[in-house]
Amino acid sequence: MSHDTRERLVRRGVELLTEFSFGAMGLDRLLQSVGVTKGSFYHFFGSKQAFTLEVIGAYEAYFEERFARIFGDRTVPPLQRMRRWMDEARQGMARHGFRRGCLVGNLSQELGPHDEALRERLQAVFRRWEDWADAVLGAARDAGELPPAADTRQLARMFCIGWQGAILRAKLEGHGQPLDDFATFFLDAARRGGDAPDRRHR
Amino acid sequence: MSHDTRERLVRRGVELLTEFSFGAMGLDRLLQSVGVTKGSFYHFFGSKQAFTLEVIGAYEAYFEERFARIFGDRTVPPLQRMRRWMDEARQGMARHGFRRGCLVGNLSQELGPHDEALRERLQAVFRRWEDWADAVLGAARDAGELPPAADTRQLARMFCIGWQGAILRAKLEGHGQPLDDFATFFLDAARRGGDAPDRRHR
Repeated sequence: MSHDTRERLVRRGVELLTEFSFGAMGLDRLLQSVGVTKGSFYHFFGSKQAFTLEVIGAYEAYFEERFARIFGDRTVPPLQRMRRWMDEARQGMARHGFRRGCLVGNLSQELGPHDEALRERLQAVFRRWEDWADAVLGAARDAGELPPAADTRQLARMFCIGWQGAILRAKLEGHGQPLDDFATFFLDAARRGGDAPDRRHR
Repeated sequence: MSHDTRERLVRRGVELLTEFSFGAMGLDRLLQSVGVTKGSFYHFFGSKQAFTLEVIGAYEAYFEERFARIFGDRTVPPLQRMRRWMDEARQGMARHGFRRGCLVGNLSQELGPHDEALRERLQAVFRRWEDWADAVLGAARDAGELPPAADTRQLARMFCIGWQGAILRAKLEGHGQPLDDFATFFLDAARRGGDAPDRRHR
């Protein structure tokens, strides 16, 4: 029973923090919607920070599954796996009327300057996502879909950076066009790119 | 005197909303730091929404000046103007220890689903910024810096989308590397891009 309440709090936390900033979510909104007192909340988690870290963990676990399933599907060419991943993420946003964005992006946006634990945790999630993207881009390069000299680590960073910008814009505009446009732009740029001439002599 | 107070509220609102989400800023923090009562605030602006719209206007005016000055400098090749713009924005973030991001991005992230006036205003700012980017990219194409078939409107959108993602990441990491990396990636992609083959047959 109490374990179940704990889980409901985390699940609802994921939903609320995907849609709202922490400030706008408010602890009261969370507790009210799950029907839990402030006392129980602090009994379960100790602090808002500890709760937030656990919510991030639940969100990350969900994405691990999604990356493994889509990026790990070797029956599909690597760049098409990336496109599929982006298409599925877009469908997920569409299901919630483009009101929900990325929990990790939302929390990063709002991060207080003193919350080092949260900052490190969020950075670790982005690094993890970049590892996934780096791996599938490496497979694309090995399969000849990208130029041999493609810097897949750098491309993986641009994928994660640009995708956050596209989510923000899709939320604002209330439709998925920014996600589609970024997907097309990124995959085109990756296919064409490679030796990054601009990095040597800017 | 009262006109001066009004202006200080707007100026402080720009600072706070560049660093915090609206929820995290809190009206109390704003009023306290300017030394103004709630009564005066509502006397001046009528509502939080009206105040926010005015803050957006002040932020937009500041960017109009920056775009006009840098993008309008015809003594500099067009793509180098874009690079300069991004370098200057990076310096601006560095001055505040990468704690402040983009006010328009912050508000977009946190936008309530029912705040249509704010949504339209924020979209209009992005469109305006895209117009600036479109114009300088058009000049780059005309000068032979981009392929003749480059879709400058689409590139302008990607510039605004990706830059928001890069700001978010620079805030999280506390340094400017994401901004530099995106600048290089974007300008390389623009130089190489053009006919966007991926858009026709995905």
